[in-house]
Amino acid sequence: MSSTVGQVIRCRAAVAWEAGKPLVIEEVEVVPPQAMEVRVKILYTSLCHTDVYFWEAKCQTPVFPRIFGHEAGGIVESIGEGVRDVKPGDHVLPVFTGECKECRHCKSEESNMCDLLRINTDRGVMLMSDGKSRFSINGKPIYHFVGTSTFSEYTVVHIGCIAMINPAAPLDKVCILSCGISTGLGAALNVAKPKMGSSVAIFGLGAVGLAAAEEARISGVPGLLFPIRFCSMEFVFYDADQYTCLVRMNKLAKKFGVNEFVNPEDHDKPVQEVIAEMTDGGVDRSIECTVSINAMISAFECIHDGWGVAVLVGVPSKDDAFKTHPMNVLNERTLQGTFFGNYKPRTDLPAVVEKYMDKELELEKFITHEVPFPEINKAFDYMLQGNSLRCIIRME
Amino acid sequence: MSSTVGQVIRCRAAVAWEAGKPLVIEEVEVVPPQAMEVRVKILYTSLCHTDVYFWEAKCQTPVFPRIFGHEAGGIVESIGEGVRDVKPGDHVLPVFTGECKECRHCKSEESNMCDLLRINTDRGVMLMSDGKSRFSINGKPIYHFVGTSTFSEYTVVHIGCIAMINPAAPLDKVCILSCGISTGLGAALNVAKPKMGSSVAIFGLGAVGLAAAEEARISGVPGLLFPIRFCSMEFVFYDADQYTCLVRMNKLAKKFGVNEFVNPEDHDKPVQEVIAEMTDGGVDRSIECTVSINAMISAFECIHDGWGVAVLVGVPSKDDAFKTHPMNVLNERTLQGTFFGNYKPRTDLPAVVEKYMDKELELEKFITHEVPFPEINKAFDYMLQGNSLRCIIRME
Ligand SMILES: [Zn+2]
Ligand SMILES: [Zn+2]
Ligand SMILES: [Zn+2]
Ligand SMILES: [Zn+2]
Repeated sequence: MSSTVGQVIRCRAAVAWEAGKPLVIEEVEVVPPQAMEVRVKILYTSLCHTDVYFWEAKCQTPVFPRIFGHEAGGIVESIGEGVRDVKPGDHVLPVFTGECKECRHCKSEESNMCDLLRINTDRGVMLMSDGKSRFSINGKPIYHFVGTSTFSEYTVVHIGCIAMINPAAPLDKVCILSCGISTGLGAALNVAKPKMGSSVAIFGLGAVGLAAAEEARISGVPGLLFPIRFCSMEFVFYDADQYTCLVRMNKLAKKFGVNEFVNPEDHDKPVQEVIAEMTDGGVDRSIECTVSINAMISAFECIHDGWGVAVLVGVPSKDDAFKTHPMNVLNERTLQGTFFGNYKPRTDLPAVVEKYMDKELELEKFITHEVPFPEINKAFDYMLQGNSLRCIIRME
Repeated sequence: MSSTVGQVIRCRAAVAWEAGKPLVIEEVEVVPPQAMEVRVKILYTSLCHTDVYFWEAKCQTPVFPRIFGHEAGGIVESIGEGVRDVKPGDHVLPVFTGECKECRHCKSEESNMCDLLRINTDRGVMLMSDGKSRFSINGKPIYHFVGTSTFSEYTVVHIGCIAMINPAAPLDKVCILSCGISTGLGAALNVAKPKMGSSVAIFGLGAVGLAAAEEARISGVPGLLFPIRFCSMEFVFYDADQYTCLVRMNKLAKKFGVNEFVNPEDHDKPVQEVIAEMTDGGVDRSIECTVSINAMISAFECIHDGWGVAVLVGVPSKDDAFKTHPMNVLNERTLQGTFFGNYKPRTDLPAVVEKYMDKELELEKFITHEVPFPEINKAFDYMLQGNSLRCIIRME
């Protein structure tokens, strides 16, 4: 047993003191896990758009100082009272949303939106506990982010948000399955469910959209062309120049089996009409992975009548309205939303890791950059410049 | 072989000479069926809202004089060249939409929206042929309606719009399976697919909505209460007093296993909120069978997050917009449209008839009125007054 068990751990964490300002590597104190909590030594973490979005804090109540980070792989250091599912030494992925296994959602085969542990981006403290943070500097609390705060050498996570995985899996690769990649994979596999030979339009050039493409590629028969149609539309790269990103990302997308590209700016008519013309009436499936409401509407309107399914993944703004003519629905089209690719984090993530271990799923191509922990701000730069899919941050 | 084969038949038909004016029983001439057509002796027909809607012709280009009618049961009198699937004497249901068995939709397991024979309410002549009517009076053509025109003792229908059924089935009952009843049954069985013990909200008090309720009742375990929740909202009874209908129809609805009623006018808040409160967060399934866009939006917004499915059945106006916040979709809700309950008319209707023959499906309770053919205008009155679900019109 580690000598740190039951002790406060002093370690390095990247603290966001203010919205939009570079993170600062600080020495923080991490208290032991309380009931139903797990303290995890993080080995690798990666940066996701959601971290950047809440770090910029343009559209929310800012919660600072805060430790961001929610894609990571680590090893259990110690466990709190009542924890049965993992023990020290287990390899785990912390997840930003949980699975209590008791609520109506957890008991439903169809939902992964746990009533108790569902993502909450406003909360800066531990879930279902004393309502406090486990991090502090000189006695002053540093807030959590989505219950994970993986930009720290040690973090405390509720057991409901911990997926135990195969210890043979390389954490520097599978850490990216904590959030965006699984979201895209699951949107295709669990929700869009393209059939062999289907056409699939993917809106959005980021890691989530490319993960949806990757899953579509996996679903095809090897040797048979899987006609994925990639619609590169309005993916918001924050401050970066969008068109430059588009060109760069398109090159990258070909690695993912994507064989056609549509840039809405190249056409005078709405992109849904362009896609319908390219595909004899519409695609069989579309997967929308941007934050643009127009892309969401186009993704629905570009599917074929009779059987088309559109899956919305991207989180819209509060004031957006999804608007379409109801005949588009009546003509036997389906619109579905998904959260975290419909994966239940504890139940389903271990099998996604196995899919990588079985060499079915390729994760390496999502990892475009890697930095040591002290250079974590570079990961933010790469993302803001639209240069990266995933940047791995090595803690040691 | 009947002596009429190959001959022009003179028979009675109810002709609509002008929009909104009572039908007139006339002697018409019905020419023999051409290639891929079937001439059918109609024994029973019933009136559907769609007949009334196009007879009123308030929102379309009027096509008159015309023979309406699209729900019926009859016997094949003679067949045109190339017809292999039916022979004289077979019992059949004409259907307003067809199944060519060759197009992408017909070949798809998911769609019934045949590219070649899909409903066309503007066309007054035969499908895929010489572009003429088969009906005339003194040499002047009388137009068809949706390829069926069953308000005639004899009619000519494309073989793709003919379902051959069990000859033992009573045509005065199963004739109502040609349109609205099958639409409602299929919306529940083929699209909403409620699981055992699900809660189902049905919007709309007409035959389609009640058929959806009937199918939900059938899907439940006998002896187990199937908590169908019936939301009586804004069903448009044309000129009739809506609230009176509501009270009357509610009594009727109880026969269909419906156990709760919501009248939106009884509540200050939106009906979707009322339903969410009644059902711990929303119903598992909703089926929208009105023509009201507000009901469509409510039907979507009243389903539970995580697993709710809303099915749109009712045909909206041209200018309507379906509008909702995209988060309602993202929270794992599904919106689906259906046309004719996703039944393929030739392939699937025979089995629906068998369901009635097996006493699983009750059709008698949909039949509220019956009139002899010369009194066909009474059927219009009953419907306009909101008095009837289905009125059977006996041809002989
Ligand atoms: Zn739960
Ligand atoms: Zn993320
Ligand atoms: Zn067809
Ligand atoms: Zn009808």
